[in-house]
Amino acid sequence: MLTDETRGEQAATPPPGEFGASIIAMARDLAQFSETPDGLKCTFFSPAHKAAAKKLREWMEAAGLEAKIDPVGNVIGRLTSGAADAKTLIIGSHYDTVANAGLYDGRLGILTALAVAGWLRKNGIHLPFAIDVIGFAEEEGARFGAPYLGSSAIAGCLDPDILQHRDSDGVLLQTLLQGDGVDATAIAALARNPQSLRGYIELHIEQGPVLLQRNLPVGIVTSIAGSSRFQIAVTGIAGHAGTVPMALRHDAATAAAEIVLAVERRCSAAPSLVGTVGQLAVPSGLINVIPGRCDFSLDVRAEDDARRDAAIGDIRAAIAGIAARRGVTATITDIGSHAAVPCAPAMQAALAQATARAGIAPFYLPSGAGHDAAMFAGTTDIGMLFVRCGNGGISHSPLETVTAEDVDLAARVLLDAVVHLD
Amino acid sequence: MLTDETRGEQAATPPPGEFGASIIAMARDLAQFSETPDGLKCTFFSPAHKAAAKKLREWMEAAGLEAKIDPVGNVIGRLTSGAADAKTLIIGSHYDTVANAGLYDGRLGILTALAVAGWLRKNGIHLPFAIDVIGFAEEEGARFGAPYLGSSAIAGCLDPDILQHRDSDGVLLQTLLQGDGVDATAIAALARNPQSLRGYIELHIEQGPVLLQRNLPVGIVTSIAGSSRFQIAVTGIAGHAGTVPMALRHDAATAAAEIVLAVERRCSAAPSLVGTVGQLAVPSGLINVIPGRCDFSLDVRAEDDARRDAAIGDIRAAIAGIAARRGVTATITDIGSHAAVPCAPAMQAALAQATARAGIAPFYLPSGAGHDAAMFAGTTDIGMLFVRCGNGGISHSPLETVTAEDVDLAARVLLDAVVHLD
Repeated sequence: MLTDETRGEQAATPPPGEFGASIIAMARDLAQFSETPDGLKCTFFSPAHKAAAKKLREWMEAAGLEAKIDPVGNVIGRLTSGAADAKTLIIGSHYDTVANAGLYDGRLGILTALAVAGWLRKNGIHLPFAIDVIGFAEEEGARFGAPYLGSSAIAGCLDPDILQHRDSDGVLLQTLLQGDGVDATAIAALARNPQSLRGYIELHIEQGPVLLQRNLPVGIVTSIAGSSRFQIAVTGIAGHAGTVPMALRHDAATAAAEIVLAVERRCSAAPSLVGTVGQLAVPSGLINVIPGRCDFSLDVRAEDDARRDAAIGDIRAAIAGIAARRGVTATITDIGSHAAVPCAPAMQAALAQATARAGIAPFYLPSGAGHDAAMFAGTTDIGMLFVRCGNGGISHSPLETVTAEDVDLAARVLLDAVVHLD
Repeated sequence: MLTDETRGEQAATPPPGEFGASIIAMARDLAQFSETPDGLKCTFFSPAHKAAAKKLREWMEAAGLEAKIDPVGNVIGRLTSGAADAKTLIIGSHYDTVANAGLYDGRLGILTALAVAGWLRKNGIHLPFAIDVIGFAEEEGARFGAPYLGSSAIAGCLDPDILQHRDSDGVLLQTLLQGDGVDATAIAALARNPQSLRGYIELHIEQGPVLLQRNLPVGIVTSIAGSSRFQIAVTGIAGHAGTVPMALRHDAATAAAEIVLAVERRCSAAPSLVGTVGQLAVPSGLINVIPGRCDFSLDVRAEDDARRDAAIGDIRAAIAGIAARRGVTATITDIGSHAAVPCAPAMQAALAQATARAGIAPFYLPSGAGHDAAMFAGTTDIGMLFVRCGNGGISHSPLETVTAEDVDLAARVLLDAVVHLD
């Protein structure tokens, strides 16, 4: 175990610009492997995906890590520790993408971890724990609707039911894996023993506008927001658009509109709370018919479950009130809920202290999106560092962007935090 | 010309129940001719439509009228006048239907006119004008998207462009008519000379809930509402439902919801004004994506154009304000406007006086729906009598209904009004 003084000196050594430009260049290089010529698409076990894995392994080897691709496609580069009985710190993110993806979603975290581990290796710095840089094979769920396949396998929480998922061509995930000689036993063997882990850190592009608005390059994630999703069907009474006076209507669409605004109002009333009606339609609507039906989705998230549940309770009450007053019925179907996943206070502190040492005021924010980190929350301490997302915070789009300066700073914060972990 | 006294005595003679049940029975009988076994559908020039026309002509002949089917399918039953140079009063409505139609929409007006003319004929009552009972062949526009084909031909305002319309099977309207030997010249010959007309009266089921709410069997139509239609596209900024705080969103759907409620509020602020968003959709909406786009229709109607135009002006201003405040753009496409068509004061008075003589307080209301009557507004005086619509006012539905008592009363009011016309 290094003394604080020694580690501090070592951590201070990378010169400005050591990491940023080269990580950006690697992300651009990795985007050459795509299923579609226009726009990046790299879904699980496609030829592009396997080529990307191979490239990641080559880079890990070039950085002096012990590299391998595991049976489900996770690319793992290990920096060993000189310490006896050393535990392992995982620093990872995913290399699969959605269709028409950005270059940095997931990959920025792998490449930054790789740069940091490579720098430690190159400089002969030994930490009291090993580091596994992991490029997870599957996080987005784009091909099989089975998100977190790679991280859940290593975290030991993979749901075996997902092996029965099929892609849009009807290919069974289980069959695809068997083609590579991978069965349930092989997958189960990937699970790490929680006792062997020092923790899990993930660096990720924010995928939102908060750091951009705050003029900050990085932020410390407090929790991965919990979410609750609903489908809501409002049934009113259809009628002729010309013949039913306004006061006699039971219009499903105006009722839905009032609910949409009630969701917006309620979710604007507390920090970290967000509510979204992403799907909205009057089925078979006609220009001259008062809507008898309006269907919409509702997605509510917050960094803590109590705040989210309170909002959902208020929204349910608002819906009931609106429906009663307008003489319509609203059927709310609960289609899934995930609890918020808090980041470990010690990991938040480590990242915050490193941020402060880099001359940046530590800023804490929740992650509204899910991340591989959530899979490890039951297994080991997790921490996440967000990097400012340009272009208004857009992600899942070719417009997603980061600056080399921000990436450089983020890599230095990550390195500093890792070096100071005991 | 009859003296008032003579006409009054003659008009008073039909015993209670003379008309109601038999008209209901005929409407049910006529519904046997349908393109679909479940639910009435009788669209222009279908076999069912031609069979319905034949049945109407037979009934007209049985009532002692001179009956014919004209080249575009209008069924005309004439009650001649003994007077020299007698003009013609047209009493008509349509016998075509939408899909899954009610039994009374349009047909009630034809059958009531037929019963009244038959009663005049049977009782040897001669009026100073002839009566043409007309069952118009096409009002709904269900097959060719060419509404008012029958009435516009006789009113002399048929737009020749509609002959180029095609049905859903690709059949050209012009070709269909030519198969029956009907060309543009034959259609033009159907136009009545305005000087030959005494007026136009149409009895129609209300297709709305106003008379039902007022507990009145009939009402006098003040005007056929004008309408303005728009398609509105709101463009905001799509984003991740979890990562963009509420305050930083430019959500197209919440903006649309606010506009929908602004339309409702403004159109509730004046009598006869109605505003409807019948089509509403987030195109390709996803549950976890903030809508970047929301499209909807707008249909605004009022019994007078100034009231409608004022509302549209205010709605446009509200849309501009909402869009500016929310940082979205709203594109408003005007897709058509029709001026309101006032009913002639003399015809309104004739129907109101007959209503009062039947012991019912005259009640005036606009028609929010279009009717064949509108085609004759530039040609002769028009008047319309609405009959109470049961089941909450539903129409364009098998649930559309009237009572025999209301129909009987309405027929007696129509007869009385016609007999008192000079």
